[in-house]
Amino acid sequence: MNMDIATVNALPYEDFVDILGNVVEKCPIITAAVWSGRPFLSLAVLEAAISEFIDALPESGKEGILRCHPDLAGRDLQSGSLTRESHEEQAGSGMGALNSGEASRMARLNQEYKERFGFPFVICARMHDKENILRQLSARCQNERAVERARGIEEVKKICHLRLQSLVLTDNKL
Amino acid sequence: MNMDIATVNALPYEDFVDILGNVVEKCPIITAAVWSGRPFLSLAVLEAAISEFIDALPESGKEGILRCHPDLAGRDLQSGSLTRESHEEQAGSGMGALNSGEASRMARLNQEYKERFGFPFVICARMHDKENILRQLSARCQNERAVERARGIEEVKKICHLRLQSLVLTDNKL
Repeated sequence: MNMDIATVNALPYEDFVDILGNVVEKCPIITAAVWSGRPFLSLAVLEAAISEFIDALPESGKEGILRCHPDLAGRDLQSGSLTRESHEEQAGSGMGALNSGEASRMARLNQEYKERFGFPFVICARMHDKENILRQLSARCQNERAVERARGIEEVKKICHLRLQSLVLTDNKL
Repeated sequence: MNMDIATVNALPYEDFVDILGNVVEKCPIITAAVWSGRPFLSLAVLEAAISEFIDALPESGKEGILRCHPDLAGRDLQSGSLTRESHEEQAGSGMGALNSGEASRMARLNQEYKERFGFPFVICARMHDKENILRQLSARCQNERAVERARGIEEVKKICHLRLQSLVLTDNKL
């Protein structure tokens, strides 16, 4: 499935959005927007265009991105309605195999986090195991709202980086 | 299904995005972003918040919104993969019942439009019948790109207006 950047650059916007539209969870508008800036010299340049688009959004827009993310081990995992990418990431970090104590702790902390900040806890699950995720969720509940908004967006970018790498070859000749 | 604005204002972000997330086609980030600005005094104020968010996007972001829209009588209609809202709108304007001459003319003009502008022809289908849509598509193919980008966004806002009205009561006491 991995394409080189020249192949990516040659895609009509419909295929570009079909293939890359979920590199930021449920935000195909971002992928669709950066298509305007093609051709991209490399995957890194495409990734930078996505980051710049996100950074230029008002703070409400950044919160909007976070609110498009599912809870970890939340209702979308239970009901099987996660996006394919989120399902793989959550399953890989053990979110589908929590024991009942872990599951109730996760549910309680997710709820506490959402009530405090008005957006969900976002973390790049592929980079962590379940113990680590629970520890970070608990710690991040204590932060200030602006800190968590920025921290969540950092995690969105890490998730985006790994999703892009699974779709586009990083080797390229400039 | 119609809620009053007080009910809308009391929704947690997850329900707000579940219910209102597609008032701009496939752009739940916009709905999710404006939740930050609640409570809304009226439906009109909520609609204005959405418009302002769209207007503040860079031009690439506006093009991104347009690129999240399906073609009229296009592949998503054929394959049954339109969103519920788009399906109802396209069916209501006769897009599912084109004769073969109309269908081939629509396909040819959609293609011409996309090649010229790099985004799809967007029109508020509920406000037009199929003859009118074909006439406007043909005429708008002749415009400048910047004119069509602005025109497409105007149509996005009309679609959003009607989708909001089908979900939220317009009567309200200020």
